[in-house]
Amino acid sequence: MNLLLTSLPTVRSLFCVTHTSKQHFRTLSGVAMRLVQFCHNEGKGIRVGVETGAGLDVVDLKAFDPSAPSTMRELLELGHQGLERAQRALDSGQCVVKRSDIKLLSPVLAPEKVVCVGMNYRDHCLEQNAPIPEEPIIFSKFPSAITGPYDDILLPSESQQVDWEVELAFVIGRKGKHINENDALSYVAGFTVANDVSARDWQMKRNGKQWLLGKTFDTFCPLGPALVTTDAVTDPHKLGVRCLVNGNVVQDSSTEQMIFGIEKLVAWVSRFMTLVPGDVFLTGTPPGVGIFRSPPVFLKRGDVVECQIDQLGSIINKVV
Amino acid sequence: MNLLLTSLPTVRSLFCVTHTSKQHFRTLSGVAMRLVQFCHNEGKGIRVGVETGAGLDVVDLKAFDPSAPSTMRELLELGHQGLERAQRALDSGQCVVKRSDIKLLSPVLAPEKVVCVGMNYRDHCLEQNAPIPEEPIIFSKFPSAITGPYDDILLPSESQQVDWEVELAFVIGRKGKHINENDALSYVAGFTVANDVSARDWQMKRNGKQWLLGKTFDTFCPLGPALVTTDAVTDPHKLGVRCLVNGNVVQDSSTEQMIFGIEKLVAWVSRFMTLVPGDVFLTGTPPGVGIFRSPPVFLKRGDVVECQIDQLGSIINKVV
Repeated sequence: MNLLLTSLPTVRSLFCVTHTSKQHFRTLSGVAMRLVQFCHNEGKGIRVGVETGAGLDVVDLKAFDPSAPSTMRELLELGHQGLERAQRALDSGQCVVKRSDIKLLSPVLAPEKVVCVGMNYRDHCLEQNAPIPEEPIIFSKFPSAITGPYDDILLPSESQQVDWEVELAFVIGRKGKHINENDALSYVAGFTVANDVSARDWQMKRNGKQWLLGKTFDTFCPLGPALVTTDAVTDPHKLGVRCLVNGNVVQDSSTEQMIFGIEKLVAWVSRFMTLVPGDVFLTGTPPGVGIFRSPPVFLKRGDVVECQIDQLGSIINKVV
Repeated sequence: MNLLLTSLPTVRSLFCVTHTSKQHFRTLSGVAMRLVQFCHNEGKGIRVGVETGAGLDVVDLKAFDPSAPSTMRELLELGHQGLERAQRALDSGQCVVKRSDIKLLSPVLAPEKVVCVGMNYRDHCLEQNAPIPEEPIIFSKFPSAITGPYDDILLPSESQQVDWEVELAFVIGRKGKHINENDALSYVAGFTVANDVSARDWQMKRNGKQWLLGKTFDTFCPLGPALVTTDAVTDPHKLGVRCLVNGNVVQDSSTEQMIFGIEKLVAWVSRFMTLVPGDVFLTGTPPGVGIFRSPPVFLKRGDVVECQIDQLGSIINKVV
């Protein structure tokens, strides 16, 4: 994993975070941090940590405070108090573990929901001659699809058309239903990078055209590298979003192109269901996916897919 | 809840369980039990229990053995050992709590997956002039939709077409991927009754025809009353399945009509994803749903929906 990070000069230049700019929206915490989940190389189970800087060493929350939660979901369930505990651990300068001594995991595991949005980029609709949706199109992955930021994507023998989709993801930080758009960002704990890996044959042609199966093979939801709290992101609707396959840029857009923004998505989905801390939203992908290329291109064993989002970082996953 | 149970004479006559008949398939445990989740009326959090008989008082597992798990999912994660612990508690005759002193919950809460199957009854395909599917059609609900066997179904203001669907549900008892059909029943912990409540307007006409939203409003997945272990069911593919709305029979079929049986569904879905203990499968509904009646009929406030399956019991939910 560190090999990959060092060999890609693009990665470091993306991290321009940790100044807390003035926000024009209410946020959950007022705390600017990059939260991660990891395990020690010797293996002590899942830990929550805070990066001392983007891509740098990590403060081990539980080492600093043995009563601290072991998972991000439990930390988020503590609300403000949880984030403040993480901030205190970071400020202490203690219990820092070297990057080389840990394995980074997805910043959230076992969420109650992975809520996905289809056709949410203007330019992605144009590339497939599809009308701009008038309402969000919501589908899902099972939590079993989630994998770590540098873990392998397992190419299933069941599909011949596995495709990439870089997406901005956000994570819910407090419980709510029928959430008002004006208030919606205060329900968001932070942001991370997702690859909505998709088996196009199963998504589009089989399973009664229900997308679920094609979207939810094991490892089809790489997430990470960090959960960047809302206060650490200047404007989530003005972030460059890119996907590189074997170093070649295949997707290059901005979250400005999103049809339904974060506030709208939170409000919309919470009309149907109660949102809880840890719920993950994938906000849709820009153009440049493999299926709409001429001729179509799909992932094959040995490919390396990198998804980058400004201020958040990169996830890099090898296809095996 | 108890009022409802006593006022409906049909309920008791369904319970013809607890003789362990010779099974022609391998099962997980060899243990015939009716497992439940409940909370004490004074409220001590979720507990796992075993019914002393169908619809009768319940042995409180944690009262018998303080080190026992508090949730069904945790119990199932212990495998054989968990079910044997439950059997010992039942055999002890101790720690029995009266039905009137507890509130029954869904037998599983917070599963990783609620896997649903569409169009899986021959007679249900016929009623809508739809072809018999050649492969299972898989969709999902979020775990947030699950509610207890006697809890209310909340009629959302967002839908004008809320419909019933009685379904046989089963629960996974051990982890597996690429499971062989011949071996599939050994991955099933047991069976329960589900109502796959469906907002037809959202399922069929909106959300880009992805069924998810119409299927996953809060409370749209009543489950219960008990998780009846595989060894306590004579043949899951020969069970009468009925739905009554306000006492009138609206669905009346048999699991014999299922197109893809339990073994096939376990094998099929495990081609795509790793199954884990607690995963819930809803196996599809027979004919008689409201949308295909002439004229269509939908649920309204005050309606009482009862879903019955032979050997498993009834769930009774009021629409509010």
